[in-house]
Amino acid sequence: MLLERRKPIPIGEAVKRIMENPLQGVTEYVSINESYGRYLSEDLIATSDVPHFNRAPYDGFAVKSSDTSDASPTNPVEFEVIDHIGAGMVSAKVVGHKQAVRIMTGAMMPVGTDAVVMFEVAKDYEKNGLPYMSIKRSFKKGDNVSFIGEDAKEGQILVKKGSLINPGIQAMLATFGYQHVPVAKRPRVGLFATGTELLEVKEELVPGKIRNSNSLMIAAQIERAGGIVHYFGKLADEFDPCYEAVKNALNEVDLLITTGGVSVGDFDYLPAIYEKLGAEVLFNKVSMRPGSVTTVAQYNEKILFGLSGNPSACYVGFELFARPIIRRQLFSKKPHLRKEKAQLVVDFPKANPFTRFVRSETFIADGRLKVTPSGLDKSNIIMSLAGANSLMILPGGTRGFTAGCEVEVLLLEDQVGCEWPW
Amino acid sequence: MLLERRKPIPIGEAVKRIMENPLQGVTEYVSINESYGRYLSEDLIATSDVPHFNRAPYDGFAVKSSDTSDASPTNPVEFEVIDHIGAGMVSAKVVGHKQAVRIMTGAMMPVGTDAVVMFEVAKDYEKNGLPYMSIKRSFKKGDNVSFIGEDAKEGQILVKKGSLINPGIQAMLATFGYQHVPVAKRPRVGLFATGTELLEVKEELVPGKIRNSNSLMIAAQIERAGGIVHYFGKLADEFDPCYEAVKNALNEVDLLITTGGVSVGDFDYLPAIYEKLGAEVLFNKVSMRPGSVTTVAQYNEKILFGLSGNPSACYVGFELFARPIIRRQLFSKKPHLRKEKAQLVVDFPKANPFTRFVRSETFIADGRLKVTPSGLDKSNIIMSLAGANSLMILPGGTRGFTAGCEVEVLLLEDQVGCEWPW
Repeated sequence: MLLERRKPIPIGEAVKRIMENPLQGVTEYVSINESYGRYLSEDLIATSDVPHFNRAPYDGFAVKSSDTSDASPTNPVEFEVIDHIGAGMVSAKVVGHKQAVRIMTGAMMPVGTDAVVMFEVAKDYEKNGLPYMSIKRSFKKGDNVSFIGEDAKEGQILVKKGSLINPGIQAMLATFGYQHVPVAKRPRVGLFATGTELLEVKEELVPGKIRNSNSLMIAAQIERAGGIVHYFGKLADEFDPCYEAVKNALNEVDLLITTGGVSVGDFDYLPAIYEKLGAEVLFNKVSMRPGSVTTVAQYNEKILFGLSGNPSACYVGFELFARPIIRRQLFSKKPHLRKEKAQLVVDFPKANPFTRFVRSETFIADGRLKVTPSGLDKSNIIMSLAGANSLMILPGGTRGFTAGCEVEVLLLEDQVGCEWPW
Repeated sequence: MLLERRKPIPIGEAVKRIMENPLQGVTEYVSINESYGRYLSEDLIATSDVPHFNRAPYDGFAVKSSDTSDASPTNPVEFEVIDHIGAGMVSAKVVGHKQAVRIMTGAMMPVGTDAVVMFEVAKDYEKNGLPYMSIKRSFKKGDNVSFIGEDAKEGQILVKKGSLINPGIQAMLATFGYQHVPVAKRPRVGLFATGTELLEVKEELVPGKIRNSNSLMIAAQIERAGGIVHYFGKLADEFDPCYEAVKNALNEVDLLITTGGVSVGDFDYLPAIYEKLGAEVLFNKVSMRPGSVTTVAQYNEKILFGLSGNPSACYVGFELFARPIIRRQLFSKKPHLRKEKAQLVVDFPKANPFTRFVRSETFIADGRLKVTPSGLDKSNIIMSLAGANSLMILPGGTRGFTAGCEVEVLLLEDQVGCEWPW
């Protein structure tokens, strides 16, 4: 029996081949009440000036500043208080010479006024049953006034498309009347598990079989990336029903992920399925560990990700190869995992003939990024995935690293991303 | 008219008073398919060893190691291949002297075998129509075998309660058969807006009025913190219906947030509502900017957060005062915003008579945390909230900061948290 020979390609080349696919984002509109956590599919543009009227930023008295010019500690100037308005009210009065309007934060400046005297510097009292106030200092035009357009100008681009809608952006959408928000439609990502050894989560363990954890892991990774999971279940153990299932699934999704079955093992059908589909195999081996047997194929404009059945390889393969195309469909300009430098805090003596991705915990100590492997680095160990918030990159051809070395890390729980890390 | 005098308390003291409230988390069970992004309400315990049988971590031939001891480059040792198993299959054969089983990754080691010879170091061929293989090196007991319990031992605590379920934890839950996952019930957080000036998002602007952005902002902050928003709408402009609405809402939620109406402005009813309820005011002024007028009261075991109507003050008040009690209800041991040190990259000349929280963008450059204010720091400016992923803390009594200074930052988009930052 001949072993199939596969030609490994560099990681960057593999990612590049996937990103040449023309898949792009699609817009849908959602209620602003549901827009938090989605990605803007258009630039957020100011639909009005902010503020759109001159307003008082403090509680106080609105006055005409020229009336205050003579005021001094020895020469208090008195104002008749002719109105009293809260935020949202508009004074119907025109403020004349030595007149003032009592005004609350957020209210519109009355006609004839151009400065606000804060309560703390005014003395208020009554005279003949009418309200008055006096001040002992002068104010300049514009003192304590928020002017039209001071915060934003109509037509200004405030947030770029592709941004994740956070609470601040949500507030801006409300300010500008975006009752319906244009967001990226979440890409539908199909998912199949393969493997005779897989039990359902609810099944009891039996010798030789394990519960299917990859599907739930990848489903969570798809969600984290911003996609919607469409789980099609476990593929049958025979070729023909597998082929039919994959073919039918491709009608419903843009991206289709399978876990397992892509190796050169004797029960790995996926390469033959790609062939029968007539899919173009972009690559079937990558110079990296884990995940070297990752296979990615293209069928029409759809992409088939054949991830390894090994949990770690599966995890890494998803993040490096599937995440970026999902993020591009969310209009991200930085669809790849964010890459940063960090200081390794322990020795990592293992040599790396191939580029190695080590599940790691990156943390901050004293303002510096530090990194430590999050568990044993055996490729079959899922336990180390739980604590991992990053993948440490150890370049191929290196002989191991010692504590204190600077290494590169890819951050997993991150919304910033990276334009091109390779 | 007398100005009410309020006594400001330090931030740490304010937070402490809130955290003395006995509110704790409650468990609910969700399907594992919906557990991603929730918080574990119990420790995740290994319900079995992993692996739960001795397994092959590579494709190859399972052999008894003692049969290989004589093998060398000049003395190949031949094995009869008596079975062929993939992952999930169990060989019915008992492997005898100089016999081997062709085995795929993940399959159970057949009875009588204790090492795996990888394909790469074996030569396989047929003899009289029967499969054979030979090797030119010896193997030790356990070579290329994953042993029972190597990855996890039954009964071991693998993940602590309060952890956010990430893809790796999701995989572990599946591995251990947690079809239903104990997670923290999301706290229900009520929300009222107040303010005559507020328009609905869909309404056209009119002079003196602005669209209600605080409610949408706080709703997103509640979601980010892990709560469920229960929006009760805008409070009426008159006292009695306000009072009734607040009282009724308290029957439906644990925490009730109002935005606006807590100042000493002339149209601010909330202090009187707290009084009529008989709620205990924990504080009504804090030594900080923005957000000094934040008022928090307790009614039975429920907490009323009277946040400022000013967007920035509202935002900061939520994160400092409401977030921690929400996180505690999610079983977090680190419920407060994560505090880290970062290097300021621009001058910030403004003096700080009070501790100031500046909406900022914290980023990483060359492995170091850096921070820059994310916009103009006027308290009425919501635009700067969009880019903010952190709050820079400038302690009270400081005279401004210059580029290169080390400052403390509170990270907003973070799941790690902090035990006690004050």
